[in-house]
Amino acid sequence: MALWVRYARGDAEGFGVLEGEAIAAHAGDLFAGATPTGERLALADIRLTAPLRPGAFIGLWNNFHEAAQKQGNAIPEFPLYFLKNPRCVIGPGEAIRPPAGYAGKVLYEGELGLVIGRTVSNADEATAEAAIFGLTCVNDVTALDLLTADASFPQWARAKGCDGFGPIGPAIATGLDWAALRVKVALNGRVRQDYPCADMILPPARIVSLISREMTLHPGDVIACGTSVGALPMRPGMEVAVTIEGIGTLANAYAPA
Amino acid sequence: MALWVRYARGDAEGFGVLEGEAIAAHAGDLFAGATPTGERLALADIRLTAPLRPGAFIGLWNNFHEAAQKQGNAIPEFPLYFLKNPRCVIGPGEAIRPPAGYAGKVLYEGELGLVIGRTVSNADEATAEAAIFGLTCVNDVTALDLLTADASFPQWARAKGCDGFGPIGPAIATGLDWAALRVKVALNGRVRQDYPCADMILPPARIVSLISREMTLHPGDVIACGTSVGALPMRPGMEVAVTIEGIGTLANAYAPA
Repeated sequence: MALWVRYARGDAEGFGVLEGEAIAAHAGDLFAGATPTGERLALADIRLTAPLRPGAFIGLWNNFHEAAQKQGNAIPEFPLYFLKNPRCVIGPGEAIRPPAGYAGKVLYEGELGLVIGRTVSNADEATAEAAIFGLTCVNDVTALDLLTADASFPQWARAKGCDGFGPIGPAIATGLDWAALRVKVALNGRVRQDYPCADMILPPARIVSLISREMTLHPGDVIACGTSVGALPMRPGMEVAVTIEGIGTLANAYAPA
Repeated sequence: MALWVRYARGDAEGFGVLEGEAIAAHAGDLFAGATPTGERLALADIRLTAPLRPGAFIGLWNNFHEAAQKQGNAIPEFPLYFLKNPRCVIGPGEAIRPPAGYAGKVLYEGELGLVIGRTVSNADEATAEAAIFGLTCVNDVTALDLLTADASFPQWARAKGCDGFGPIGPAIATGLDWAALRVKVALNGRVRQDYPCADMILPPARIVSLISREMTLHPGDVIACGTSVGALPMRPGMEVAVTIEGIGTLANAYAPA
C-alpha cells in the first residue's frame, strides 16, 4: 500500500510516496522500478501535479448498474469506451476551463481510474489483474453540447478531449481493494455523487482483459471505469472535489475565462 | 520539398530524407530541427518503418462531398472526428491483423494524413496552415462489426484502435499542394479508391484550426482527413496499397493469423 504522487517545486519535477505531510522522493521509473533518494519534501513546499501522463486514456460509458437502470441502458458485456485526448490531463488544483467560444454545459463525472503498470495484450483476467498498478481519482469532464452537436455523429472524443478535461490524482494508490471503495463528488462541499465501486457492471480485471484483446495496454495508461448517477453540469466558480477514500481528494475549480 | 522517412537496420533506428534509392540520414528532431549526418543508406539495406509515432491520432468521418452525397450524410461545418489509439500505428510492409477472436469485416480506408509540426492552440487558419509540417498516407483500418456491435453506443475508438489498425507512411512529404493530390487504393493491384483531395469538405487548415480551438495539437500528431467512396472489407491475403503521388505507396497485407 503506497500513495504515489508527482510534484513540482519551482522548475523541477519529481515523484515519490506520500507519507502524511511529506513526500519521500524517488528516482527511477514508477513502473519499471523506483528507489527512494532519501530526500523528504514537505507538502507545504511543493505543488502536486497529475500523478502521471498517460499514453492512452480510455473512458467507459455505461458501466454502473444504478445509472444503467435509471437511464434505461442495456447491460453491456464488453466495455463501451471512448478515447480521451491523453494530453487533456491536469492535476489537482488546476482549473477546468471550457474551450474558446463554448458557452454550453460542462459536466463533471467522478470515476475510479485504473493505472496500468505492465504491457498487457490479449490477457486473461488474472494477468489483467496483475497488470493494474494502482487506482486513482478521475474527473471525466464532458462538454455536453459538443457531444450532441451533430445529429449524425456523437462526438465523444471531441466532447471529452478538450484541454484540461481530464483531471486525475491526487495520487495513485497501490494495494487497495477496488470493490470496497466509494466514489464521492462534492460541488462546493455539497455531495452530488456517492456510489459504490462494487456496483460496477464490468469489474477492473475484466475491463483490462477485454480491452487488451484488441488494444495492447502499456504502463501509464489510464482507464476511467465510468460514472454512476449524479453527474451534473458545473457552474462557473464551483469547486469539484472527487474523493475516493484511500486515494484522496482531487479538487479542481470550474473557471471559465 | 522533402520526403522524410524512418528506418530500421538491425536493432538501430534512424530517420532521414529519401533521395531516390538512398536515405540521407539525419540527426536531431524532425520538427525541432534535423541536420544531415553525412551518412547515406541504400534502401536495399534498411527497412522503412512508420515515419513517426503520433502522440494523438485523429480520424475524420464524413469529410468528402462524394461520399457524403452517396451515403446521404449532411455536410458538417466542424470536423467530426474520433481518436484512434495512437499506438495502433504500423509502417509500410507490416501486416494488418484482426484482433484475437474477431472474425468480422475489416475495412481499409485510404486517406490523406496531416502531420502537425508545431504546437498549435486556438489557431486561425493561417497559423494552422503553418503548423502542418507535411502529408502522409494513412490506412484508417476499421473492424466494422465492432463499430456496430452495440446498438446503444457506436464504438469508434474500439473499432478503429485495434493493434495494427493505423498504417501510415511510407514518408512524410513536405511542400506538397494537398488540393492537387489524389488518394488511390489498390487491392492486389486492382484500384478500388481513386478520389481527389480537392473534394474535401473541410480543408486541412480549417480542420487544424477548428480542432485546435478545443484540443491543443503537438508536433507529431496525425490527422487523417477522412475517406471518400470505395472503402471495402479486405479478404485474407490481400495487399492493400494506398498511393498518393508525391508521397509514395503505403502497402500492407491483410493477414489474419
